Amino acid sequence: MSKNTTYPGINAGRLWQRHLDMAKIGATAGGGVHRMALTNEDIEAHVLLVKWAEAHGFTTDLDAIGNMFIRRDGIDPSLPPVSSGSHTDTQPNGGRFDGITGVLAAFEALETIEEAGIKTRHPLETIIWNNEEGPRFTPSCMGSAVYSGDRKLDEMLTRQDSEGITMGTCVDELRKALPQAGSRELGAPIASFLEVHIEQGTRLESSGNIIGAVTGMQGYRRFEIQVTGEDSHSGTTPRSRRKDAFVAATDMTHALRDILWDDEDEMRYTIGRFEVRPGGVSVVPGQVNFYIDLRYHNKKTLDELGERIPQICKAHAGPCEMKILDALKVDPMEFPEEVISGIEAAADWHGFGHERMYSYAGHDARFAARLCPAGMIFIPCWKGISHNEAESAEPEHIAAAAQIITDMLIDQAI
Amino acid sequence: MSKNTTYPGINAGRLWQRHLDMAKIGATAGGGVHRMALTNEDIEAHVLLVKWAEAHGFTTDLDAIGNMFIRRDGIDPSLPPVSSGSHTDTQPNGGRFDGITGVLAAFEALETIEEAGIKTRHPLETIIWNNEEGPRFTPSCMGSAVYSGDRKLDEMLTRQDSEGITMGTCVDELRKALPQAGSRELGAPIASFLEVHIEQGTRLESSGNIIGAVTGMQGYRRFEIQVTGEDSHSGTTPRSRRKDAFVAATDMTHALRDILWDDEDEMRYTIGRFEVRPGGVSVVPGQVNFYIDLRYHNKKTLDELGERIPQICKAHAGPCEMKILDALKVDPMEFPEEVISGIEAAADWHGFGHERMYSYAGHDARFAARLCPAGMIFIPCWKGISHNEAESAEPEHIAAAAQIITDMLIDQAI
Repeated sequence: MSKNTTYPGINAGRLWQRHLDMAKIGATAGGGVHRMALTNEDIEAHVLLVKWAEAHGFTTDLDAIGNMFIRRDGIDPSLPPVSSGSHTDTQPNGGRFDGITGVLAAFEALETIEEAGIKTRHPLETIIWNNEEGPRFTPSCMGSAVYSGDRKLDEMLTRQDSEGITMGTCVDELRKALPQAGSRELGAPIASFLEVHIEQGTRLESSGNIIGAVTGMQGYRRFEIQVTGEDSHSGTTPRSRRKDAFVAATDMTHALRDILWDDEDEMRYTIGRFEVRPGGVSVVPGQVNFYIDLRYHNKKTLDELGERIPQICKAHAGPCEMKILDALKVDPMEFPEEVISGIEAAADWHGFGHERMYSYAGHDARFAARLCPAGMIFIPCWKGISHNEAESAEPEHIAAAAQIITDMLIDQAI
Repeated sequence: MSKNTTYPGINAGRLWQRHLDMAKIGATAGGGVHRMALTNEDIEAHVLLVKWAEAHGFTTDLDAIGNMFIRRDGIDPSLPPVSSGSHTDTQPNGGRFDGITGVLAAFEALETIEEAGIKTRHPLETIIWNNEEGPRFTPSCMGSAVYSGDRKLDEMLTRQDSEGITMGTCVDELRKALPQAGSRELGAPIASFLEVHIEQGTRLESSGNIIGAVTGMQGYRRFEIQVTGEDSHSGTTPRSRRKDAFVAATDMTHALRDILWDDEDEMRYTIGRFEVRPGGVSVVPGQVNFYIDLRYHNKKTLDELGERIPQICKAHAGPCEMKILDALKVDPMEFPEEVISGIEAAADWHGFGHERMYSYAGHDARFAARLCPAGMIFIPCWKGISHNEAESAEPEHIAAAAQIITDMLIDQAI
C-alpha cells in the first residue's frame, strides 16, 4: 500500500444497481439467476458489460476459448495488464452473486479510476473467464484453465452440452454478438490478477469480519463414472439375474462415503449428478452415469484417496461393468504471501475487519496464479448458502471489496 | 374345446410380416422399438391396424381413454364381444414383441376366422388398450384400468408427460387420426378376454414348452417419493451442514433393499426412475424424486411390507424432508380355472407343449378380468430379456399362440 497515493472512493450505489441490472438476465421465479455458460442469457450479460465499458471508451478483446477482457489503456503499451475479474455464468438456478460480484467489483474499479482521471503505466483490465461453473460444459474453470495452458483449446472447443451444442459453436456466437471486440492470444502475459468472490461459507458471517484474505485453495479429484448393466423387466427378472446399474452405482457411492468419512468434517465428498437410464419405473436400469466430486486441503491424503476411488468403485460393480469416462486431478495451491498481505494492508487502510482464510471452492484465480501473482478477496455470504437461488450478499460488503480492488489496482499499475 | 368345430389354420407368414411392419414404427438403431403411448409413432401404429382392419370390412371404435376396439360383427348384435388383444405402446427403447404380439395374434385370429367364412353369434374384437407401459404417462395399464372402473377417467385425462402434454390432448389426437372410428362406452360389457404375451422370464425357455397357461399375477406396490434437502456448494459446505437429498434417498433405497431381501428371490424390488436435482457436478443436490416398484405373489406379505415402506423411508431421511407424492396398491389375482384349462385343451389339440405358470409382470388382462372371464397365454422370450431392444421371440411360437386364440375365440363366440 503506497501511502503517497490518494485512492478515489468507489460509487457503491452504482455498483449495487449494476448487480440488480445483471440479476435480471436469467432471473428465476425463485429470486435467483439461471445463466449457464454462453447461453443467450450469458451472452447478453457479456454484451451489457461491453455497453457499459464503451460508455467510458474502454475496449474489449476476446480469446479463442471465450474469455473476455475489458481494457483501460495505460501509458506504456508494452506493459502487461494489471487485472481483476471473475465470471458471469451461474449454476442451474443459481444465485445473484457467485461470479458476477467479482466481475462488477473489478469493473467498478476501472470506472472509478477512469473518473478520477488517474493515469497508470500498466493497462487495467476486467477479465470475464468463460464457463467457470461447468454444469453446461464440463469441466469447470474451462476458460481460465485453457488460458493458463492447463487444458487444451482444441479439446475444450469440442465439448458438448446435453443438446449436442459444442463450446466452439457458443464461442462463435459470443464473437458474433460482439463484432467490435479485438483478439487476445491465449496465455498472453498478465501482470497480476485479483478476484472478489462471496465466501460460500459461514466463517466471515460468524467472525463479523467483512474481508477474507484468501491463502489458498483445496485440491480436488473428479471422476465421471459409467456403470453398465442390462435393462430388464422389474416384475419378471429375479434379483439373481439382474444387472442393475442403480444397485451397483449406489453400492459404490455408499462404499466411498464410508472410506471418505473424516471426523474433522474437512473432506468434501459429493455426488451431485447421477443419471439413471432408461428411467422407466418398471425397468431395471441398465445404465447409470455419475460424477464424484472430492475436495481436500492436504495433497498427500488427497492423492492417496484419489488413487483408491477407481478400485473401490470396481470392487462394488457386482454383475455390472464400471468405466471411468473422465478423471481430473487438481492439487491444493497457495497464493503468494505479498498478495495476501497486500489485501490485509488495504483493508486496514479503510478500517475493514479482515482475516486470512482458506477457499473450499475452486475459482479461476487458481489458474490465473499460474501466470502471475494472484489473490482472492472473500466477502460474507448469507448463511454460507451458494449455488442456490437464496444466495445473498450485502451491498456494503461488495463495496468494501471493490474499494480494495481499486486501491490495489492503482498500486500495482501506477 | 368343442371337437365339433374345424379350426381354420392361421397364416403364420402374414403374422410375422405384420410384426416386421409394426417394428418399423418407432424402430431404434439398436434393433428395438421406441413407441411410447400416443406419441406420433404409437398413433401411426393404431392407424396401420385400422387400415388392415378396413381391408376386411372390420369396424373400429374408440373409448374416452383411448382404448381401440377392432370389430368383426356377429350374428346377434345384442351379444357382447368375445375379445382378445394387448397394447401397441412400448417402454423407452423397448422391444418388438412386448404388447404388439398380443395385438397381432388377436388380429390374425379375426382375419383367419373372416377368411374361413365362419359366422359367430357374438361379435369378435381385437382390443388395443391404451398406455399399458406407463413411462410417458403414469400409471401403467391406464386404459384397461379406466375401462374396468379401477381408475377415474377425469383424473387420468389430466395426467401429463414430461413436456406438460396431457393424456386428454393425446386421446384427441388419436381420435383426429381416426375420424372414421365410432364411440365405445367405458365399461361396456365384454363376453371374454384373452391376451397373448411374451413371458418376459425364462421358464418356458428352460422347460422347452411353447405355451404358458397363466394362472395369476403378482400384486404390487408403487410409491413416488420426493426427498427435499437444500442445494449447496460441494466445496464449501461441510457434511454437518448439508441437507443432501442424494444421501438421504440412497440411504432409503439401501435400507429398503435389506428389508425386502428374500432368500427365495421371489420379491421384486426395483428403483428404475431416480432423478437428482439440480444435477450440477459441484452442487450438493437439494432434491431427489424416485419411484419404488415392489411386486410379490402373496397378498399378506405384500400388504405388510407395503405398510412399512413409508416408515422406512421416513426413518432414513436424515436432515431432509420426505414426502409420498403417489402410492398405488394392486393385489395379486388369479384367472378363472375354466379359462386356464381351456388354454391347455387348445394346446393339447395342436400338440403344443404347455405348462401352467404365474405372471410376474402386470398386464391389461388383470383389469379385463374384473369385467369378464379372462386369461393369458405366454410364449417363450429369448433369455427372458424384455423392456430392452434385444427382446426376441420366435415366429413359430407366436403362430402357435395365435392359433390357440383363433380356436378359443371360435369356441366362445360361435
